[in-house]
Amino acid sequence: MKAEIIAVGTELLLGDVVNTNAAEIARMLAELGIGVYYQTVVGDNPERLRAAVTTAAARVDLVVLCGGLGPTEDDLTRETVAHVLNRPLHRDEVWAAHLQQLFAQRRWGRPGRAEPCDTAGVDPGRQQPREDTPFPKNNLRQAMVPEGGTLLPNDRGTAPGIYLTDNGTTFVLLPGPPGEMRALMRQQVLPLLAGSLSDNGGEAVLMSRVLRVIGLGESRAAELLADILDRQTNPTIAPLAHSGEMTFRITARAENGEAATAMINRVADEIYAVLGTAIYGEDDETLESVVGALLIEKNLTAATAESCTGGLTAHRLTNVPGSSRYFRGAVVAYDNAVKERQLQVDPDLIESCGAVSEEVARAMAENVTRLLDSDVGVGITGIAGPDGGTEEKPVGLTWIAVAAPRAGAGGSGRTVSRRYQFPGDRFDVKRRAAHAALALLREVLMNAVQEAG
Amino acid sequence: MKAEIIAVGTELLLGDVVNTNAAEIARMLAELGIGVYYQTVVGDNPERLRAAVTTAAARVDLVVLCGGLGPTEDDLTRETVAHVLNRPLHRDEVWAAHLQQLFAQRRWGRPGRAEPCDTAGVDPGRQQPREDTPFPKNNLRQAMVPEGGTLLPNDRGTAPGIYLTDNGTTFVLLPGPPGEMRALMRQQVLPLLAGSLSDNGGEAVLMSRVLRVIGLGESRAAELLADILDRQTNPTIAPLAHSGEMTFRITARAENGEAATAMINRVADEIYAVLGTAIYGEDDETLESVVGALLIEKNLTAATAESCTGGLTAHRLTNVPGSSRYFRGAVVAYDNAVKERQLQVDPDLIESCGAVSEEVARAMAENVTRLLDSDVGVGITGIAGPDGGTEEKPVGLTWIAVAAPRAGAGGSGRTVSRRYQFPGDRFDVKRRAAHAALALLREVLMNAVQEAG
Repeated sequence: MKAEIIAVGTELLLGDVVNTNAAEIARMLAELGIGVYYQTVVGDNPERLRAAVTTAAARVDLVVLCGGLGPTEDDLTRETVAHVLNRPLHRDEVWAAHLQQLFAQRRWGRPGRAEPCDTAGVDPGRQQPREDTPFPKNNLRQAMVPEGGTLLPNDRGTAPGIYLTDNGTTFVLLPGPPGEMRALMRQQVLPLLAGSLSDNGGEAVLMSRVLRVIGLGESRAAELLADILDRQTNPTIAPLAHSGEMTFRITARAENGEAATAMINRVADEIYAVLGTAIYGEDDETLESVVGALLIEKNLTAATAESCTGGLTAHRLTNVPGSSRYFRGAVVAYDNAVKERQLQVDPDLIESCGAVSEEVARAMAENVTRLLDSDVGVGITGIAGPDGGTEEKPVGLTWIAVAAPRAGAGGSGRTVSRRYQFPGDRFDVKRRAAHAALALLREVLMNAVQEAG
Repeated sequence: MKAEIIAVGTELLLGDVVNTNAAEIARMLAELGIGVYYQTVVGDNPERLRAAVTTAAARVDLVVLCGGLGPTEDDLTRETVAHVLNRPLHRDEVWAAHLQQLFAQRRWGRPGRAEPCDTAGVDPGRQQPREDTPFPKNNLRQAMVPEGGTLLPNDRGTAPGIYLTDNGTTFVLLPGPPGEMRALMRQQVLPLLAGSLSDNGGEAVLMSRVLRVIGLGESRAAELLADILDRQTNPTIAPLAHSGEMTFRITARAENGEAATAMINRVADEIYAVLGTAIYGEDDETLESVVGALLIEKNLTAATAESCTGGLTAHRLTNVPGSSRYFRGAVVAYDNAVKERQLQVDPDLIESCGAVSEEVARAMAENVTRLLDSDVGVGITGIAGPDGGTEEKPVGLTWIAVAAPRAGAGGSGRTVSRRYQFPGDRFDVKRRAAHAALALLREVLMNAVQEAG
């Protein structure tokens, strides 16, 4: 089954919003073995949207449209698809009643004053609309469904999804807010698509596995894997360089999932044999989830002391569900006074070596470990820029240290420190520094695992 | 001038990588008044890439291709564009020599072992390749340029950009890594495009201004602005709901920049009259940059004490260049012991009220302000999930407090606290909580400004 994703919205076309939905929808379709052949973005323009829908219907079997289902005048997806397919729109009275009930319950439609966050984020006790706030009539457009289509109820917003098959092509309409799109895809669209795939039968299965590599440049990795890459046909191997890491996506087509998995595993084993521990994880794994798994495996806790990264390393570590089991906390010591008071870094050390120095990074790592009572600790100090650089210590210079003082913890009681010179702007430096800190922490924990083995 | 952006890469099509480049290129083109009419994503497939380039050449005046210029076999953009335009590829000997020199200097092409980060991020002293590492021949493909094209040197990577005009259509080829794309666009492509626009003369100017609103739902805002939205033609007003905030992009077309600015300002003034301080900023401003500007204006410093957000609020505050002027630091108190020891929160308070409570949020805010010696402080405690929720305190429940104890600081010595119930998964809750914390901090600082006036 070939698919096309059409994202609708002038905000996407003009670049105000990044099209994360297309990527997420593509990943979800890949789980069913559905290959995305095209992604298109069009603005809130009925003529060009009509052309895009017509083109897609002619070249793929599944068209997923995302966005343009809102209540405002420029939300045109529903009407445009109905027009292209020549199907009249009918009002779904159940959804219309639901919309009016939502409003009556004051779940949305708020008074004309600033609230601290959006509807769902506000304390229900504080979001009473004025008694006379009228029901926004525009919202009733959201209850319209093209003839023959199925309304997919949306429990997070007012725009439902729509599922419709026309002349052998399936159309899926999804609201643009990522949380709503995601819930509708997971809970309703994927099961419907899986059902229709098994009805058709004999559909070749497409499966993928992604190997995540840290520390190898694109050219060098391609050279190392030249033999394997040269003879790729099925499975295919797609190398991709991100900033600071690289992935290899192995994709196989086969009669069934078992055969595809076996084909993928054979190639993956070959790549592992060449790249070894440079492969830090697979598929959706992240450096922080891998670090978390190592900490759980070793029964260790961690803490961070961050200067230039401003808490980003702690943020990434705490993105992992269950990280409260092993992450104790962080001190973001942006100001030197905070390094001295909260992290007990010797002021003379800062004076003599500078805040961005190996000595201070090591002291930060060792002290945060002791003060937060963790088994391992990370210290990060660098110059994120754009100001603050000197000839001797330019923007991007960063020292990272990992302390592992306890017996049994990684690094056998030693503190490891390393110097980095990161390129790019302030955000790049922060991002790369946090990434390098997690990589160094992984390295220390891996050594511990090896020593224990 | 009409433009189309074609992003090339199977990794984009399959959703492994989000297409941030298209959004960024669109925003940069908008600065020159160039409107993007289509965005397309195609995989590393020569046939479909050829079709996409042919289609684009027929419907727009400017085709920006991004990605597929790397050294590996599946990087085909250069060859495909040359093929479609029927122009032979010639080797640029200067760039070829540059590539070989880069390698000789060991600026890339590293040995087959894991490094802590990518080339540019590694200490030069640690990245010596083995003496016998051969020059990767694949890289010489990156010195090939279609006849008549201009090579755009890339000082951050091995793939240069290409600028080429064919039969009235301009083609721009850019490498996929965002940092390389960005530098090439800013430093070379935008000046070339601006030059060609002024040569043509009489080009209508397209200008935009974005108003950023916090706290109003999409329907409600549309209703409030109904009169203004109804009569929009030029300027147009595009409303867009993000999670937790909303933007209105006002776009005008006019003979010149002055006329466009006047048209936009007239509409913006009308919207300000309706929405008032719910508009927190414009264009590229962020909540953190607005908070930073308020802190500078009031000559105040800030600190955060974070539990569920895990340092994200501090990370956002420190994304603003120059934030070291006003941001002192943060304590990420993930573990209760850290709340007690590093933030001196009374263990009895945690015991009696629970770690997620108004009392603990207030204590965190007040204590971090005192301990880090700042003028204002933020305390955040909540349940990010997926575990840890109860019936009484479900996942998403978050208390946020802002303390402003000093005379002259916002809030006149009071601590403000507020309860939120955020929807979504762990990451949504963290993101919305950090956003709400910045919004509450802004509110407190705004009140201070009003009182001072």
